[in-house]
Amino acid sequence: MTQLAFASRIRTTELSRHIGERICLVGWLHHLRRLGGVNFIILRDGWGTAQAVTENEADLAPITDNELGPETVIALHGTVVSSAQAPGGVELHEPQIEVITPVREVTPVVINKREVNASLPSLLDHAVVVNRHPARRAVFRLAAGAMAAFREALTQRGFTEVQTPKIVASATESGANVFKIDYFGRPAYLAQSPQFYKQIMVGVFERVFEVAPVFRAEPHDTTRHINEYVSLDVEFGFIENHFTVMAMLREVLAHIFASFAERYAPELSLVNAKLPTVLEQIPYMHFSEAKELVFQLHGVDERNEPDLSPQEERWLGEWAQREHGSDFLFVTGYPMSKRPFYTHADPVRPAYSNSFDLLFRGTELVTGGQRLHRYEDYLAALGRAKLPTTPFESYLEAFRYGMPPHGGFAIGLERLLMQLLGANNLRLTTLFPRDLNRLAP
Amino acid sequence: MTQLAFASRIRTTELSRHIGERICLVGWLHHLRRLGGVNFIILRDGWGTAQAVTENEADLAPITDNELGPETVIALHGTVVSSAQAPGGVELHEPQIEVITPVREVTPVVINKREVNASLPSLLDHAVVVNRHPARRAVFRLAAGAMAAFREALTQRGFTEVQTPKIVASATESGANVFKIDYFGRPAYLAQSPQFYKQIMVGVFERVFEVAPVFRAEPHDTTRHINEYVSLDVEFGFIENHFTVMAMLREVLAHIFASFAERYAPELSLVNAKLPTVLEQIPYMHFSEAKELVFQLHGVDERNEPDLSPQEERWLGEWAQREHGSDFLFVTGYPMSKRPFYTHADPVRPAYSNSFDLLFRGTELVTGGQRLHRYEDYLAALGRAKLPTTPFESYLEAFRYGMPPHGGFAIGLERLLMQLLGANNLRLTTLFPRDLNRLAP
Repeated sequence: MTQLAFASRIRTTELSRHIGERICLVGWLHHLRRLGGVNFIILRDGWGTAQAVTENEADLAPITDNELGPETVIALHGTVVSSAQAPGGVELHEPQIEVITPVREVTPVVINKREVNASLPSLLDHAVVVNRHPARRAVFRLAAGAMAAFREALTQRGFTEVQTPKIVASATESGANVFKIDYFGRPAYLAQSPQFYKQIMVGVFERVFEVAPVFRAEPHDTTRHINEYVSLDVEFGFIENHFTVMAMLREVLAHIFASFAERYAPELSLVNAKLPTVLEQIPYMHFSEAKELVFQLHGVDERNEPDLSPQEERWLGEWAQREHGSDFLFVTGYPMSKRPFYTHADPVRPAYSNSFDLLFRGTELVTGGQRLHRYEDYLAALGRAKLPTTPFESYLEAFRYGMPPHGGFAIGLERLLMQLLGANNLRLTTLFPRDLNRLAP
Repeated sequence: MTQLAFASRIRTTELSRHIGERICLVGWLHHLRRLGGVNFIILRDGWGTAQAVTENEADLAPITDNELGPETVIALHGTVVSSAQAPGGVELHEPQIEVITPVREVTPVVINKREVNASLPSLLDHAVVVNRHPARRAVFRLAAGAMAAFREALTQRGFTEVQTPKIVASATESGANVFKIDYFGRPAYLAQSPQFYKQIMVGVFERVFEVAPVFRAEPHDTTRHINEYVSLDVEFGFIENHFTVMAMLREVLAHIFASFAERYAPELSLVNAKLPTVLEQIPYMHFSEAKELVFQLHGVDERNEPDLSPQEERWLGEWAQREHGSDFLFVTGYPMSKRPFYTHADPVRPAYSNSFDLLFRGTELVTGGQRLHRYEDYLAALGRAKLPTTPFESYLEAFRYGMPPHGGFAIGLERLLMQLLGANNLRLTTLFPRDLNRLAP
């Protein structure tokens, strides 16, 4: 096959539209299965897999004569036949194989069985090849689908997409650990969130979103931390309070999961994921009530702690499922003491904030809330936090020249996938994870 | 107005659907113009501007009594009236103003005149406020539109979106300058492009794209360099050669500009941009022919130089416009000596490459080409470039286990806007530019 002929290939997902025709597929030799005289050639292309069947050993010669193995890049010609037994209901007969790129070495991890069977370090070390496994790549197809549906939901609601700087002058946003860069001899930092910029952009577009990497230099080696992840950020003006933000978040999540149901059934099936129910009204509960409920139900008294532990989050998630049939629960009004300086206080109970976390199946998925919007309030908040104003000069300029009541939220893309898939490690939801010890691939 | 009432506001762009009704707008006091007894209140919201007219001074009292200025956040109630003189053909009568966030200070740069009249440093220092100017934000609306159309074009063609790591272990991709990070005590770098990862992902999805920041530590202080920009990256498999890539690029650009024509007429008009013609067949010319042409037309003999100078690019751009009526010109076959090690050579003239640059109005907008795809070819290429294989171990794993002929390209989002707008400085096409001396806002 000349490369010129690539243009005439069809995709594996298009086979059923070509029954009776002689066609050409191109892709990777996923598997060659030889079962007592009947041979199955499984080809994988960018969208799926397809099988060819032959009893004629000579058809396999281009592979077997040269002792080629899986992942050899091939063109596969054949006649499309409807077949009840074949996966997808179609298969190729009278196959003819042409080798495009031969592979003789055995892959470091077997990627043509139903499951990937390898240790986590081995999976991650060889992600370059392991990500080709159909169940692995289904995860990343879902990641792409989530980003697309997120953008679609927000664009429909009048939001404008922004791309804000990832190299920033100041490390003082929220006291979290940041990576330091040498910026032409000056110190600079990697953005740990687009928080300041997305707020500034409310002054420009009123409604903005951003899909971009964020960087956290947290030295935690846990199953639910990575040091670079994709943040789906939203910020918008003219809100009443954090409940306006929660209502928007509900719509965005409903849109993402509806899009999964509509367009990603094969991927969901490959990863055994069950879509959550997004109720018209996601149940919500004040932080102080949540603490009280945990105490009542489980006898654990952490009512004086200013945050929820992972165990408390799990219990609350179970409660929401049991009492409301909801995979989601909003916890509102976290104590001001644990929230960053730009957080808007509850006007009635000022020790609590107009903020929220959204728990998805018992794990925090989203943090959001209402922000301060008056210049004087920022000066006071920085003073209370004992922070200098100089590093915030540009940020403060937005408030100095008129900002409406506003708020927003950030969804961690990998967290969303982890909870959807029931994965036991966040590293399995990103192509090439970065953690305390891992910088490659 | 209680904040609860924000939900009942309409957008300035929706006014013409409400003629005869009493409505409420919210936004910023863009301008208060008082012309001999007739007063114009111009409100700007996230989507446009609208004017209210009154001869009754008392209607202005909420502003004038408190000596408030532009950028005060307001709600503006009024009756929608069709008016031939009003911008957009509608205006509000019997206005009633409510102040949401008062502003008394004068903005550091005037942003309610037709043009922003300030020096470049002043524009950039106060980008937080200057980006609110209608002509400035039109630029960023076009940026959002370009990203959306880029993704749309590629999704329609079976491409999958990826997000690849921006913190990388090795600085050796192409010898360009990279920013160094302290990664938990180990050296790491900011990705100067997703080149390696997008190629690796061809092994997974065949067709991938990415929209993400890239970082270049080039110490150039020119009008067409910034150190962090948005790269629109594409890579795909089963190509014949770089002409397959050029054909795909043409389709993507045609889609972006068609989307601008269809959806962004007001923004194009605000920035005085003239859309380019994307011909069915963009003219192309081999690098050696381009050098010869410049020599013939202009008598400048740089035929032995392995690259095109900015002046040569401008001359070639003028030639393409004159001879073909084309805003675009492909220059193909750049010398291998100037291209990175993964570049595929021209099989017939191996000193030249299967690569291209696309000139847009005489400036390089896109670089792309065919890459090597055989493992042995990579080992040989690294050897020729005197590069060690160890830092490339994971990258090489993709080729070791089967890669098809493939190629791709990268469009610089800011370059695209700069050339479209005829801007004289790349810094004017990004929200908050980063350059040799600028890290804020």
